Amino acid sequence: MTVQSHVLIDAGESIVADGTVLQGGGAAGVLNWRVKLRTCRGGRSEGVHVVELDNGAMCIDVLPTRGMGIWRVRRGADSPSPSRGGARGGAILGWQSPLREPVHPAFVPLFDPSGLGWLEGFNELLCRCGLESNGAPDFDANGKLLHPLHGRIANMPAHRVEFLVDEDARRLTLRGVVDETRFHFQSLRLTTSITTSLSSNEFTWIDEVENIGGRDAMMQMLYHFNLGQPLLQPGARITAPVATVAPLTQVAAKEGVDTWNIMPPPRPGSAEQVYVLDLAADDSGNTRVLVTGLTNDEAVSLRFNKRTLPCFTVWRNTPAEADGYVVGLEPGTNFPNPRTFEQKHNRVVALRSGETWRGEVTATWHIDNQTIAEEEAAIRSIQADRLPEKLKNPRSEWSSHA
Amino acid sequence: MTVQSHVLIDAGESIVADGTVLQGGGAAGVLNWRVKLRTCRGGRSEGVHVVELDNGAMCIDVLPTRGMGIWRVRRGADSPSPSRGGARGGAILGWQSPLREPVHPAFVPLFDPSGLGWLEGFNELLCRCGLESNGAPDFDANGKLLHPLHGRIANMPAHRVEFLVDEDARRLTLRGVVDETRFHFQSLRLTTSITTSLSSNEFTWIDEVENIGGRDAMMQMLYHFNLGQPLLQPGARITAPVATVAPLTQVAAKEGVDTWNIMPPPRPGSAEQVYVLDLAADDSGNTRVLVTGLTNDEAVSLRFNKRTLPCFTVWRNTPAEADGYVVGLEPGTNFPNPRTFEQKHNRVVALRSGETWRGEVTATWHIDNQTIAEEEAAIRSIQADRLPEKLKNPRSEWSSHA
Amino acid sequence: MTVQSHVLIDAGESIVADGTVLQGGGAAGVLNWRVKLRTCRGGRSEGVHVVELDNGAMCIDVLPTRGMGIWRVRRGADSPSPSRGGARGGAILGWQSPLREPVHPAFVPLFDPSGLGWLEGFNELLCRCGLESNGAPDFDANGKLLHPLHGRIANMPAHRVEFLVDEDARRLTLRGVVDETRFHFQSLRLTTSITTSLSSNEFTWIDEVENIGGRDAMMQMLYHFNLGQPLLQPGARITAPVATVAPLTQVAAKEGVDTWNIMPPPRPGSAEQVYVLDLAADDSGNTRVLVTGLTNDEAVSLRFNKRTLPCFTVWRNTPAEADGYVVGLEPGTNFPNPRTFEQKHNRVVALRSGETWRGEVTATWHIDNQTIAEEEAAIRSIQADRLPEKLKNPRSEWSSHA
Repeated sequence: MTVQSHVLIDAGESIVADGTVLQGGGAAGVLNWRVKLRTCRGGRSEGVHVVELDNGAMCIDVLPTRGMGIWRVRRGADSPSPSRGGARGGAILGWQSPLREPVHPAFVPLFDPSGLGWLEGFNELLCRCGLESNGAPDFDANGKLLHPLHGRIANMPAHRVEFLVDEDARRLTLRGVVDETRFHFQSLRLTTSITTSLSSNEFTWIDEVENIGGRDAMMQMLYHFNLGQPLLQPGARITAPVATVAPLTQVAAKEGVDTWNIMPPPRPGSAEQVYVLDLAADDSGNTRVLVTGLTNDEAVSLRFNKRTLPCFTVWRNTPAEADGYVVGLEPGTNFPNPRTFEQKHNRVVALRSGETWRGEVTATWHIDNQTIAEEEAAIRSIQADRLPEKLKNPRSEWSSHA
Repeated sequence: MTVQSHVLIDAGESIVADGTVLQGGGAAGVLNWRVKLRTCRGGRSEGVHVVELDNGAMCIDVLPTRGMGIWRVRRGADSPSPSRGGARGGAILGWQSPLREPVHPAFVPLFDPSGLGWLEGFNELLCRCGLESNGAPDFDANGKLLHPLHGRIANMPAHRVEFLVDEDARRLTLRGVVDETRFHFQSLRLTTSITTSLSSNEFTWIDEVENIGGRDAMMQMLYHFNLGQPLLQPGARITAPVATVAPLTQVAAKEGVDTWNIMPPPRPGSAEQVYVLDLAADDSGNTRVLVTGLTNDEAVSLRFNKRTLPCFTVWRNTPAEADGYVVGLEPGTNFPNPRTFEQKHNRVVALRSGETWRGEVTATWHIDNQTIAEEEAAIRSIQADRLPEKLKNPRSEWSSHA
Repeated sequence: MTVQSHVLIDAGESIVADGTVLQGGGAAGVLNWRVKLRTCRGGRSEGVHVVELDNGAMCIDVLPTRGMGIWRVRRGADSPSPSRGGARGGAILGWQSPLREPVHPAFVPLFDPSGLGWLEGFNELLCRCGLESNGAPDFDANGKLLHPLHGRIANMPAHRVEFLVDEDARRLTLRGVVDETRFHFQSLRLTTSITTSLSSNEFTWIDEVENIGGRDAMMQMLYHFNLGQPLLQPGARITAPVATVAPLTQVAAKEGVDTWNIMPPPRPGSAEQVYVLDLAADDSGNTRVLVTGLTNDEAVSLRFNKRTLPCFTVWRNTPAEADGYVVGLEPGTNFPNPRTFEQKHNRVVALRSGETWRGEVTATWHIDNQTIAEEEAAIRSIQADRLPEKLKNPRSEWSSHA
């Protein structure tokens, strides 16, 4: 049996296969995958498309309308198969932003002169920041906005979404294509493949960003991967192979770099603390990051390669729970400074016409102690006998706040 | 019989019960209420939800998509019951903005650098101005927009709308919840209950604005209640218990404060005239305002409490009829100056986390002489022997134009 | 038989007759016209309405959602009648912008502080630029955006669209009404009639812009009529009766005014070259422009009157094909400089309350040599023995780049 493909969205053919449900043919729950395309109704989520990609063990909710971001991953209760050996019960991977439902881009004032309108749409587990730029808003000398916070890709809808299933290989893939194009300026095309195996607790996104225009272009990508409630608890710990870690902001410096990897409790009104890292990696550039101390002793890890994602940022957001208690793990081509700053420090990717940048991240939702221990061992192996360098203050090359 | 509740919109459940019609069970037109949720089609109103709340005597058209504003109130022809004792014929409470249909927020450029984009969506009988700010656009020293004209709540869709009916108490209520939330900044939640009795010519909106975030917040609310054609005529008169009245603008000063309460005829190209008032109130803070001299000798009154709505603004807009001939009655927490100015003069409401501001206004559409006379008497009673103070020029504490 | 009228869109009645198909009653393909209203799905075109107006020889795709712009004209394959004497095969009149599908205005950041957001929605054969302004973005002395690039009408939806057919006169007309209204400011109403005869290779748009407000108003109109692939080829030539031609920009000056009318080949990364012209006209003000050298020796011509469309601009966009290789023919009330500049040079139309500006352009898609020769002769006749004046550099009255 070869790969079967199903078009869910194709703007070129004026197709949105709303309400489509596809599911595995296997008996006795062996091939109990299920895919559904639905459309959100009501409030600011009116019209947002959601693809529910269920591998039998967990359901990945993908948002074509928001640049193929991943809203959340659900395990347990909401899945089609009610009983599920090994799972510790229903749970959600994601976070609780003050805005709970996915927000339609029409309600996100991205070009609010403050450059902060992006914040009104931000509530995903995985929110891509890019493609022309990401990071803090960038202004010209007169205070006019050049690049809004974290760029535009999260508020661009996919014009093509396809579901691919290979039951022999037990593999599901959702492929989406999102263009970030301004006529006369850049034409960047994101093609993402979000893939998972049947019954797996892992999923991978493989992103290709192609300069489909005829001009030279520049791009940035930062994966804003966010863990919050109900999984996140005070004291949750990030384990990573560290070459250097430094605060990005003065607030983070004041909190202290020594505890960069420990999640403080919610403190109403507190400001976010951001740390930037040069991770250690193996000879192939592979590295990995683990968050432990989550509810039910669960853990979450990311694996990626530093050759395309050289920068790693940790975002600790520690306000009252109602304001979004969350930690962000952010592999990226750059640090989240204004693009002008990053460009000066050569952390922008140049793409000639036809060139493609490729990034890949695998996320694992650990619900057993053994794989957590294996992950920790793998990280120790990369760290080896290298001593992490910890900078007390922002480093001038890394931070526009230095 | 207890209250029955029907969910019309719930973004959390992805529900918009479009096309729903509910109606009273009584025979012989005794309980001839009717509620309908419909969706506008075409032009800039495409996708706007309207809840038609008909109490048997009049139909209140509410706009969940526009922050639970009230588009208009209709009496007569369009109602389900064709004959209606006592009504003087079909009529509309509202006004004729150049844009006749309700405008979807996606077509309102709220963050146009001029800060005036709000004007492109404004055509309701009741348009709420707030929640983070209202009033004239507020700019920083470099001319960058801080707060757009009249804030954002009128262009935020309700994420939950519920209809409640208590036939024993002969009471209908439409409850809507609208969040004005920017992650990292404020989280203000408006819960409004728009309520009316069967066959009544009155309706009330009871608004609660809760700071659902963990940070201290500030809010403003101004109810832009607008009477225009076909009811409004030149010479229409506002009667109110006045402590002090002053022009807000130089144009209003030039028109003269002595005639602040008399609607001039349409004068093509004329500028709006705005007056601000400190109303007198009874010992409980209750006050009331009446507009007489409308078509067919009808009148409209508002009742509210100065303890939560201390400021009252009168907006006379007297251009050609095609440009929107209208008078606005505007009870508010503040006057419609830029927020920075209002904040300096302590006319911004501070809300700690979890705190709630509550405002309530009752509007009556008088179609008989007796209740008009009663209303006038009630206003005289509040005024008592107090002499209204009339300021010829803008007062520096009240006007950024002073 | 008189004219039959069918309402396709009417916001006042909350009607969008989506899916409507109307077609001719004649037998044997004699009256094989066909009209369809459909709604685009997917990506940034979600919700865009398209009226397919097929006269039996070609299908004109009109976009009510984008100000009644004309997306493209199709001949051949997609038409209802499969065989079509004389046509040289299926083809498309239009161009290949990097964004292929029509873009919903909700995805066009018109008020991006750069003033260039309009570019993200631009991909039509005919894109109207106006009504309050068109041309390059206009800023105040502090760099704050006053008027965004090419104005707003292309991103305003028609609130009323009506199809009219007169089978006796063999004439089809699509009439659309689009308001560009900002309360307190201007109220301009565009009523366009797009009309074609059965089996014809011509179509005409007749635009009326009425000042429906009570104030004096000003307007501008520029018809951005764009020919690109698959028809456009390097060496394509514009023939026109020329009084004076000048470069608008320094880039165009450098390219040389002598070859203003010859389309260069695609040159990746090249900047657009813009030329502005005072065309010659006959005694009634009629003038015409022809583009020859298109694929299959086809040609396209425009006819219009200089009394209402005195200015003519040629836009040569010569980047890589992927970036949109296209030539624009732009009859207008003005040249595409910032409105402040055009106003200084009296190229803005003043409209008193109730006044109407009227413009009309006929486009012909020539697929036979004879009508091309006739068109060339007509142009020669207007030119007569007048010598075209060719200015090497931008003229100060005509160009803000001079």
